[in-house]
Amino acid sequence: MKFIIQRDYLVRSVQDVMKAVSSRTTIPILTGIKLVTTNEGVTLTGSDSDVSIESFIPTEEAGDEIVEVKETGSIVLQARFFSEIVKKLPKDTVEIEVQSNLLTIIRSGKAEFNLNGLDAEEYPHLPQIEGNHGFSIPADLLKNMIRQTVFAVSTSETRPILTGVNWKVEDNTLQCIATDSHRLAMRTANIETENGGSYSAVIPGKSLNELSKILDDTTDLVDIVITENQVLFKTKHLLFFSRLLDGNYPDTSRLIPTESKTEIVLATKEFLQSIDRASLLAKEANNNVVKFTTMPEGVVEISSTSPEIGKVNEEIQSKSIDGEELKISFSAKYMMDALKALESSEIRISFTGAMRPFYIKALDDDTVFHLILPVRTY
Amino acid sequence: MKFIIQRDYLVRSVQDVMKAVSSRTTIPILTGIKLVTTNEGVTLTGSDSDVSIESFIPTEEAGDEIVEVKETGSIVLQARFFSEIVKKLPKDTVEIEVQSNLLTIIRSGKAEFNLNGLDAEEYPHLPQIEGNHGFSIPADLLKNMIRQTVFAVSTSETRPILTGVNWKVEDNTLQCIATDSHRLAMRTANIETENGGSYSAVIPGKSLNELSKILDDTTDLVDIVITENQVLFKTKHLLFFSRLLDGNYPDTSRLIPTESKTEIVLATKEFLQSIDRASLLAKEANNNVVKFTTMPEGVVEISSTSPEIGKVNEEIQSKSIDGEELKISFSAKYMMDALKALESSEIRISFTGAMRPFYIKALDDDTVFHLILPVRTY
Repeated sequence: MKFIIQRDYLVRSVQDVMKAVSSRTTIPILTGIKLVTTNEGVTLTGSDSDVSIESFIPTEEAGDEIVEVKETGSIVLQARFFSEIVKKLPKDTVEIEVQSNLLTIIRSGKAEFNLNGLDAEEYPHLPQIEGNHGFSIPADLLKNMIRQTVFAVSTSETRPILTGVNWKVEDNTLQCIATDSHRLAMRTANIETENGGSYSAVIPGKSLNELSKILDDTTDLVDIVITENQVLFKTKHLLFFSRLLDGNYPDTSRLIPTESKTEIVLATKEFLQSIDRASLLAKEANNNVVKFTTMPEGVVEISSTSPEIGKVNEEIQSKSIDGEELKISFSAKYMMDALKALESSEIRISFTGAMRPFYIKALDDDTVFHLILPVRTY
Repeated sequence: MKFIIQRDYLVRSVQDVMKAVSSRTTIPILTGIKLVTTNEGVTLTGSDSDVSIESFIPTEEAGDEIVEVKETGSIVLQARFFSEIVKKLPKDTVEIEVQSNLLTIIRSGKAEFNLNGLDAEEYPHLPQIEGNHGFSIPADLLKNMIRQTVFAVSTSETRPILTGVNWKVEDNTLQCIATDSHRLAMRTANIETENGGSYSAVIPGKSLNELSKILDDTTDLVDIVITENQVLFKTKHLLFFSRLLDGNYPDTSRLIPTESKTEIVLATKEFLQSIDRASLLAKEANNNVVKFTTMPEGVVEISSTSPEIGKVNEEIQSKSIDGEELKISFSAKYMMDALKALESSEIRISFTGAMRPFYIKALDDDTVFHLILPVRTY
């Protein structure tokens, strides 16, 4: 294998596939990045066996030569060193050449690295994805849907299925749901599926976080294919594979209240900042719980007490309070997470009493829904 | 105590004195910030007993009212909470009031915090500094002198005196020296002392690092007073006290070579980048050693080998090589630290053989001097 490549393209590709490489893998060859050179270009692959990322660099793009392939072939190079090296090379182009015994030469200007490579034949094969459960979403929408739900997955392995986000496709609608059983985040979007049908998959939260880091904020379409145990996200030059979580995702629809007794409309930012301040002392008492009380004339009081340190009390003016008076306690963190995921300047919170889950929606947008379970303190 | 203050001034002052507050102190009251209000303004103090910082906020500056003092007095507030709270308050002004039982109210807009304070009488007194070993340096020069030497202090407590920087004043010259016994950094500057005299002190590297973070990059003079066991740095509204290290600093002058056998002039940046690349593999072998070899026609070869991973080889063109041929090995980290501390675009390295310490100076500046001990590998 021998090729000359524009360094910027190589750096970018290496950074992308590095997202899948873990230094803690039990399979030694997966600490490496696989390079395969054909006459069409260079393909880089990184994998931790849960997530695999493949990045393709074509020989030419828009008439510019990016790669000059002198000899096709393949090699696996230590990811940690290879990525550091390409970042720090002195010139704009890099020559990579595999000599005998897998010895790989990386040349740029007067700098020359000799790296001991590994046999690419020993690198695990990527999953073969052939499914007809396919649809496409613009990259920026996909990133948003991930951001607005993935924070709510469980971080505990007690119920592994809750560490993933449930993706449900039905009637040309994609619904993403995440819950750690104390709160729930849901985001819905219209999509065009190729052949209708309804199906459901649970994608690990960790995989979605990595995917989100790689995707650009463009309206370019990402093709998504879901099979029995894998999902594939496909952009122009990138393939992102993740295994799916095994098991049935709980039916969350019955958690969602069908009635409400108190409805409050608040300015999102003011409310968020107020909860943030109240949580300064709430954190100390180690449960991060704040109290939320309706007062006369549309005022809401937010308070928190930490016996050792002191207490905090704030009043904010709501846009409206309809229905019963309310005194409720909840996790400041869950509320802040939900408020940050909402993009609207005003929100409506719908309560059904101090002991029942309540939900938060944007005033002008039905696609995002957050549910929080209160904490009993009264 | 009761006063109203512009929040920005309070935030800045709290941030400054926080630099001295440690959460790991064995004296509980030192986890707090002391506030003292007089008719002239508010003084904040933070201390970990090694370093103490006092920041003064005057009632007025350039005709603007900054503090409105309603009642003088004092209190100690938990630093961690107080600093977080003032940062997040909703309005531009803050009212702070101490009520009975040291209960302190912090009000801003509709937000109200009640914090349990501590008795300011129990806060340790700051050292009384009355010395006549005084001089002044512009803040930006002081920061530079710290930056160019403090990195070379020892991080090991085996010889505690080496964790400090030796400041020597003699003949209107200030010399700062730091060494960890493997390398040495020295920076000299002309100063105006009040009454001549020569003296020497060892200031903890940690204290200098904190001082450096607080100082602005201005040409405003910093007054420096050194006593038997304390040093005081004084700016317009800030007092920074540090204890000095006990003991005699080793005489480093005999370490400095008086002759040289090989002199090499190099472009700083190119050399730094080249060492940086070579160290990528050197780090793995865990000693971070690179080889430096003179070649014909003014070429210098830099190389490093890590048996497991591979090797790297680079050639750089020197500006000149005078004297004997040379093959020497040294720590890439020490060399990079020294090169980063030099501000010149070209440097001269003076060697006296492969086994002897060598020194690096800027080509056009005699105030900075770095010495590195080689590593025996040949």
